[in-house]
Amino acid sequence: MQTRLLPAAVVTERTAITDVVDAVEDAFAAYARGDVQMPAKSYIDLPQYNGDFRSMPAYLDAGDWDAAAVKWVNVHPDNEAQFGLPTVMGTIVYSDPETAFPLALIDGTTVTRLRTGSAAAVATRHLAREDASSLGLVGAGTQAYTQLEAIATVRDIEEVVVSDVDSEAVAEFVGAFEDRFAVREGSIDEAAACDVVSTLTPVQQPIVTEVGPDTHVNAMGADAAGKHEIADDVLGEATLVIDDYEQCTHSGEINVPWSEGLLDEEDIYAELGEIVVDAKPGRGEAGGPEGVTVFDSTGLAIQDVAAAHVAYEHAEEADAGTPFNLVGTDV
Amino acid sequence: MQTRLLPAAVVTERTAITDVVDAVEDAFAAYARGDVQMPAKSYIDLPQYNGDFRSMPAYLDAGDWDAAAVKWVNVHPDNEAQFGLPTVMGTIVYSDPETAFPLALIDGTTVTRLRTGSAAAVATRHLAREDASSLGLVGAGTQAYTQLEAIATVRDIEEVVVSDVDSEAVAEFVGAFEDRFAVREGSIDEAAACDVVSTLTPVQQPIVTEVGPDTHVNAMGADAAGKHEIADDVLGEATLVIDDYEQCTHSGEINVPWSEGLLDEEDIYAELGEIVVDAKPGRGEAGGPEGVTVFDSTGLAIQDVAAAHVAYEHAEEADAGTPFNLVGTDV
Repeated sequence: MQTRLLPAAVVTERTAITDVVDAVEDAFAAYARGDVQMPAKSYIDLPQYNGDFRSMPAYLDAGDWDAAAVKWVNVHPDNEAQFGLPTVMGTIVYSDPETAFPLALIDGTTVTRLRTGSAAAVATRHLAREDASSLGLVGAGTQAYTQLEAIATVRDIEEVVVSDVDSEAVAEFVGAFEDRFAVREGSIDEAAACDVVSTLTPVQQPIVTEVGPDTHVNAMGADAAGKHEIADDVLGEATLVIDDYEQCTHSGEINVPWSEGLLDEEDIYAELGEIVVDAKPGRGEAGGPEGVTVFDSTGLAIQDVAAAHVAYEHAEEADAGTPFNLVGTDV
Repeated sequence: MQTRLLPAAVVTERTAITDVVDAVEDAFAAYARGDVQMPAKSYIDLPQYNGDFRSMPAYLDAGDWDAAAVKWVNVHPDNEAQFGLPTVMGTIVYSDPETAFPLALIDGTTVTRLRTGSAAAVATRHLAREDASSLGLVGAGTQAYTQLEAIATVRDIEEVVVSDVDSEAVAEFVGAFEDRFAVREGSIDEAAACDVVSTLTPVQQPIVTEVGPDTHVNAMGADAAGKHEIADDVLGEATLVIDDYEQCTHSGEINVPWSEGLLDEEDIYAELGEIVVDAKPGRGEAGGPEGVTVFDSTGLAIQDVAAAHVAYEHAEEADAGTPFNLVGTDV
């Protein structure tokens, strides 16, 4: 048996984002049903290199399919300036749960982008207005690209407003999408007035202070204690949906107001999986949220497993990537 | 930058066991000094497949070198009968701690064998008689091969006695080594009477009931609660050295008598790392143990990191394995 090697280029080229969105939705559903195993992330802190590693193992049973993988990922903020390397790099070992055979070794950086965009898309599917047509993006980095690609699969997005202090990044983003969308640079307020807005920054002081009356916000940026993109009064008045209670209260968008006692259990409407499995209604359903909704995304290991599953299945079908004999078995 | 792919064949061919023994010794020393980060193993239990996955991330700073990696490894006991696959397969992502760049993807099965044999060799170096020349092996499976290879680097082994219920496995083992050693099949008692004996079985009822008066025992088999190879009275009278307190008391050779209250803290002489850094004397040093010594090995993630480090460095030097562009960076 061979292990398939899927580098970044193959994952990007071969992995259909619509399928990742569906698989990630399956993962949230499995989570709500209790059909996952997801030990807490393990951290290795390396202050001497101003960096850390995280290991994220998980298994999920989506009913039609199941999958297991570990993602080994880092955050080294000095990488770009010092070494010309990405701040975050990931590697995924994707295994057959039945035998544990390593089916694929996958670039985890690309998979992370796909699964993060897909989580926003799943939240948007259940929480944005049905007729949402404008998308704001606060932050024009690599995540912005997959946010737009993924969200455009669940809503008929026509207008895109992108905001970033780096106007070169904005120009690059506009250039990449102007043939498909009415995409323009705008202020944070303009982006936040759209029907859907995704916030993608690592800030510790809120920069989004007002949003549209029915806006759905995907708060993607916060992933550590102290990070906080959206003003407390916006969060306080919104319907709050989280990906995971433990992760969000410790490191998600709500972690700062939570630690200050400004938000508590009663302010959380649902985990996203509960809405996916119809345990709680989404927008437009009887009893579902109206007005502003906020999805607090911290990123779950099961999202990586789901996205890796799609990447592997598509590559296998197309015989893409490079098969090789890693294990050295004769079978 | 390229990521180097090191399949089983390359690891086997290129990795000098003497260097792995030294690197694993460095890892135990780093552990004793507190220069490692080793989160607890995470388990994913899949009873529907009678199997499990473990993720083992670690970092160690040996002074001259440092290294980080995660091993993703499984135990699926039905694999061989049902699928012709190994019960245990492992994959290692080996990363530069400074940048987190994935330097190599390594077959973890081979690395596990090397690091396990090397742990026994490190223990033997510090705990066996200086003039030890006979080695007993209880169990003639794949681990037996690396036990002999590794231990022969630290003591001048001439005679080898191998015991196994599977006489075909014994014959194969004898055939593999008879040109280098006086190797013969023997009973468990004969193997256990040697100067050094390594026990390599998954039994739950002790099979080694008596050992030589100065024998050093490497108890390698027990890796889960309930497993137990060596009779309690042998353990009770021996000087006990463990690799790690948490792991050994829960899943090592001592776990059963420990849980029954037959052994307690006072019966443990040292963690192996303490002897390596001379915090406690080994055999032959003033105040060091005499008579029977037992090393309880459960296997630490830092051993894998150390062995992966050697495998990578040797492959890099020889330009062995297959470099490829996993991350897709231009640097």
